[in-house]
Amino acid sequence: MGWQKHYLDKLSRFFQIRNLLLRQALAECLGTLILVMFGCGSVAQLVLSGGSHGMFLTVNFAFGFAATLGILVCGQISGGHLNPAVTFALCLLGRERWRKFPMYFLFQTIGAFFGAAIIFGMYYDALWDHPASFNVTGPDATAGIFATYPGNHLTLVNGFFDQIIGTAALIVCILAIVDPHNNPIPQGLEAFTVGFVVLVIGLSMGFNSGYAVNPARDLGPRLFTAIAGWGSEVFTVRQGWFLVPVFAPFLGTFIGVMIYQLMVGFHMEGEVRDRKESTEQETVRLTNVTSKDNSRETILK
Amino acid sequence: MGWQKHYLDKLSRFFQIRNLLLRQALAECLGTLILVMFGCGSVAQLVLSGGSHGMFLTVNFAFGFAATLGILVCGQISGGHLNPAVTFALCLLGRERWRKFPMYFLFQTIGAFFGAAIIFGMYYDALWDHPASFNVTGPDATAGIFATYPGNHLTLVNGFFDQIIGTAALIVCILAIVDPHNNPIPQGLEAFTVGFVVLVIGLSMGFNSGYAVNPARDLGPRLFTAIAGWGSEVFTVRQGWFLVPVFAPFLGTFIGVMIYQLMVGFHMEGEVRDRKESTEQETVRLTNVTSKDNSRETILK
Amino acid sequence: MGWQKHYLDKLSRFFQIRNLLLRQALAECLGTLILVMFGCGSVAQLVLSGGSHGMFLTVNFAFGFAATLGILVCGQISGGHLNPAVTFALCLLGRERWRKFPMYFLFQTIGAFFGAAIIFGMYYDALWDHPASFNVTGPDATAGIFATYPGNHLTLVNGFFDQIIGTAALIVCILAIVDPHNNPIPQGLEAFTVGFVVLVIGLSMGFNSGYAVNPARDLGPRLFTAIAGWGSEVFTVRQGWFLVPVFAPFLGTFIGVMIYQLMVGFHMEGEVRDRKESTEQETVRLTNVTSKDNSRETILK
Amino acid sequence: MGWQKHYLDKLSRFFQIRNLLLRQALAECLGTLILVMFGCGSVAQLVLSGGSHGMFLTVNFAFGFAATLGILVCGQISGGHLNPAVTFALCLLGRERWRKFPMYFLFQTIGAFFGAAIIFGMYYDALWDHPASFNVTGPDATAGIFATYPGNHLTLVNGFFDQIIGTAALIVCILAIVDPHNNPIPQGLEAFTVGFVVLVIGLSMGFNSGYAVNPARDLGPRLFTAIAGWGSEVFTVRQGWFLVPVFAPFLGTFIGVMIYQLMVGFHMEGEVRDRKESTEQETVRLTNVTSKDNSRETILK
Repeated sequence: MGWQKHYLDKLSRFFQIRNLLLRQALAECLGTLILVMFGCGSVAQLVLSGGSHGMFLTVNFAFGFAATLGILVCGQISGGHLNPAVTFALCLLGRERWRKFPMYFLFQTIGAFFGAAIIFGMYYDALWDHPASFNVTGPDATAGIFATYPGNHLTLVNGFFDQIIGTAALIVCILAIVDPHNNPIPQGLEAFTVGFVVLVIGLSMGFNSGYAVNPARDLGPRLFTAIAGWGSEVFTVRQGWFLVPVFAPFLGTFIGVMIYQLMVGFHMEGEVRDRKESTEQETVRLTNVTSKDNSRETILK
Repeated sequence: MGWQKHYLDKLSRFFQIRNLLLRQALAECLGTLILVMFGCGSVAQLVLSGGSHGMFLTVNFAFGFAATLGILVCGQISGGHLNPAVTFALCLLGRERWRKFPMYFLFQTIGAFFGAAIIFGMYYDALWDHPASFNVTGPDATAGIFATYPGNHLTLVNGFFDQIIGTAALIVCILAIVDPHNNPIPQGLEAFTVGFVVLVIGLSMGFNSGYAVNPARDLGPRLFTAIAGWGSEVFTVRQGWFLVPVFAPFLGTFIGVMIYQLMVGFHMEGEVRDRKESTEQETVRLTNVTSKDNSRETILK
Repeated sequence: MGWQKHYLDKLSRFFQIRNLLLRQALAECLGTLILVMFGCGSVAQLVLSGGSHGMFLTVNFAFGFAATLGILVCGQISGGHLNPAVTFALCLLGRERWRKFPMYFLFQTIGAFFGAAIIFGMYYDALWDHPASFNVTGPDATAGIFATYPGNHLTLVNGFFDQIIGTAALIVCILAIVDPHNNPIPQGLEAFTVGFVVLVIGLSMGFNSGYAVNPARDLGPRLFTAIAGWGSEVFTVRQGWFLVPVFAPFLGTFIGVMIYQLMVGFHMEGEVRDRKESTEQETVRLTNVTSKDNSRETILK
Repeated sequence: MGWQKHYLDKLSRFFQIRNLLLRQALAECLGTLILVMFGCGSVAQLVLSGGSHGMFLTVNFAFGFAATLGILVCGQISGGHLNPAVTFALCLLGRERWRKFPMYFLFQTIGAFFGAAIIFGMYYDALWDHPASFNVTGPDATAGIFATYPGNHLTLVNGFFDQIIGTAALIVCILAIVDPHNNPIPQGLEAFTVGFVVLVIGLSMGFNSGYAVNPARDLGPRLFTAIAGWGSEVFTVRQGWFLVPVFAPFLGTFIGVMIYQLMVGFHMEGEVRDRKESTEQETVRLTNVTSKDNSRETILK
């Protein structure tokens, strides 16, 4: 045991990274990898088994609890955003520094890329066994395992609106969960609650285009599929649909932040500020009284 | 960052509402919006996808966890009722002031109205793509996405009874969860427990007419559908069914409050009262003894 | 408000029951009513909708979370057994008095009876609308909504064994959850954990005869169906099957208690006892030392 | 009651085991028994009912929550590994002694063996009633109820890779949950979180070969089926597939430990070490200062 401890300690010292931002970005990378690995894995299981080993509900559960697990793995270190839209919302509210945003976005996308790669390796045989192995469109298309594609009924405008609403709903709920003045959840259960948010969004907003609501979760796996055999069609299909889940979520984030702040956030912050200011004034008055007393005492002396 | 903080602070001061009741009503509005948005969204996903992206179980999960999220968003501010029947129950028991009731009812209905509107916008293309786009009755009717309609087997009398039982069951469970003398749940988990109550009601009481058990959740979306294209048929269908989920829940609330109080509540309250009174009597006796002692001491002196 | 408070207080004093055992039995009655109402309600929804509004999984969820809600409603008052087998297990271990057992059994059965009655009333129209309204046997039989009946493949011997295993599994898990020396669950979450136990038993032990594992949950609704129109066939069918879910669970309880105690319980109790005894001995020795010291001091004086 | 207490105490003293390792191994045995009993029971329910009483999702739920319950039953005593791969991971990290590993492996396998035996007894009639009662291969094969077998599309290489990925994912999540420097979960909820991990792995990695990711869970039931009537074919089928879920998980464990430590663990440990060392240095400096002060004081005296 002594030898093992010594060796572990040496390993730990050798690989330790001391730069906080890089460490946080690495943690985000692992968290997003877990989210995409489990999430896209469940879509793969549904599509490749032809429905015998999954259904849309299992995909919703998988993405929800995958978000929970991803946050648990990295939350203590990086905050567990797993989603550039969440990072963007916290930057907008001044709770995270803006320079974190590009770094997190990059590493979240890298994590999503590798999460998709793991699932590709895991289901490699099943993919070749599938009748439409590397199709991007058509009834048995497998590209939808990794990135999201719009349903046939969906226009680009409605798809854009769909992503805005989904992300706004996500952000309103997450802001309520992490609001320092409105925190209703026991310490340590935030990850589970965010998982439920992702689950519910999947249950009710997943029909149009598969609820990406996360630029990294969509872009990373799409890049992977472009390389792994599906080709550039993953970007060109449906008049450049791939831009929608990359840009619409940020607009949705802005709207979600506004709605939450206008209807709940500003008033709670204001109340806290009012209370603090009135306490300060009272303190000032009390200080005056005390100093007067002191001066009186001084006089009396 | 300094500039951003300054600007956020200014925004916060500009939009801050200081009237407590209005702030609470706004929070209820947002909470009910979330409940109806996610809940009706899941029905829309089930109906419009023709069963490929949902089933009745997903609707139950969505309404349950939507209730949880709605309560989490507004619970710290307004109590997170999301349902005029809950407000009514708490008023009946003297735990909320009666003047809150109309205000909450109004804003809950407004929130439900806008929740339905968001889902309408989100699934606009899918709705037009659906064979029975704006039908109120028939096998593919879409009006049931927003408001509840009775099954073909259901008479108006049994439907009324159905809503009474459903609401009574909801209220008994909620009263147990929030009873100050019988609170079994760790602080902060009430929202999850109420979500489970809504889930279970959906699992076992949803076949007759879709378990509204909430006048605001039914009336708001029904008003929206009347405006958005389904027409006045939403009110006239089945001999004015729409009145059942508006009025029956209040009767159910009364019955639920009575059952809980008769079987659990009154005895616990009584026990607490008994203990307090006996403590008071003892204190009186002890005081007498002490004063006697004092007088004896005085005499001895 | 003043008038309301006064009136509520008067009501509370009028209906207050001061007998503890009766109060506990009433709470058990309400808890079991909730368990059976939600549980059998979900079976009714599954059977009467012909599968469109439920499946076996929804029944499992409903019974699991119904157990959770039933325990939450009455747990603080009566312990939340909801099941004579659980009461029996706690009596066997000397944690509850034996005189509670018949009282709890009676009131749990009464609660189950009324829970079934509520579901009967709620789905009265749907029941008449069903092709096999009041059949006890056959493919569309509705008697299985309320009480359990064995599958066609099941012999009476295997059915007896099935109920023994199911109850033993339930009791092992419940004992682990409530063991004072092995309590792994945060205060207040026991009800949820027991709900998960019931859910898992339904997921894996429900195929043979519908996992009654609870004499009251089976007997109460069976009595109700005998009265409500299904007739005495509910008792005579399959050579008196109804006796199996009444008697087998108690044997299963005994076996479950033995397994848990032999493999976990006795050793933990023993460890606690060992520690206490060694502390006592040390105390005795210390006392001796101290008294010697004292005597020495006395001598020195 | 007095007599009962006396008798229980005597029983407890008679059966008490004082050897800690044996006690822990017994607890692991019971925990794994519960895991396999509920998990394989749900597969049995799915296979033997022909899909009417289960689907792949119910198997996922059952294994997930069965893991939770197994951990709850034995976690306080033995740590609740239920899986030699978990024991191996903790030994690798120096958090458990290596001599625990063979003992735990043995008793976990024994527990899994008996868990399978209980399910065999419970569904004995249903098994004989099934068209392919004791088949190891073919569409209705029942051997898959107990041990895992690869899908037809799967090669041995991909199957090996599948088990490695599955176990690595399990281990990364479990390490995050139990990491003393990164513990995000409230005390007592680890069991539930591990249950969610197992659930998610089933939802997304179950299609290839049924996600054993646990040598004991696969080997014990396989041994049982070899004895109980399926014969030696359970070992010889698919070029000795049975070796894959016995050996691949340990390789997956090693990879999972490396990934977690490289991306999260080493940096957190390092930070804690850095902080401790800097505190120690400061203490040393402070001690020096103090001793100097002391010497100055001594001089001044």
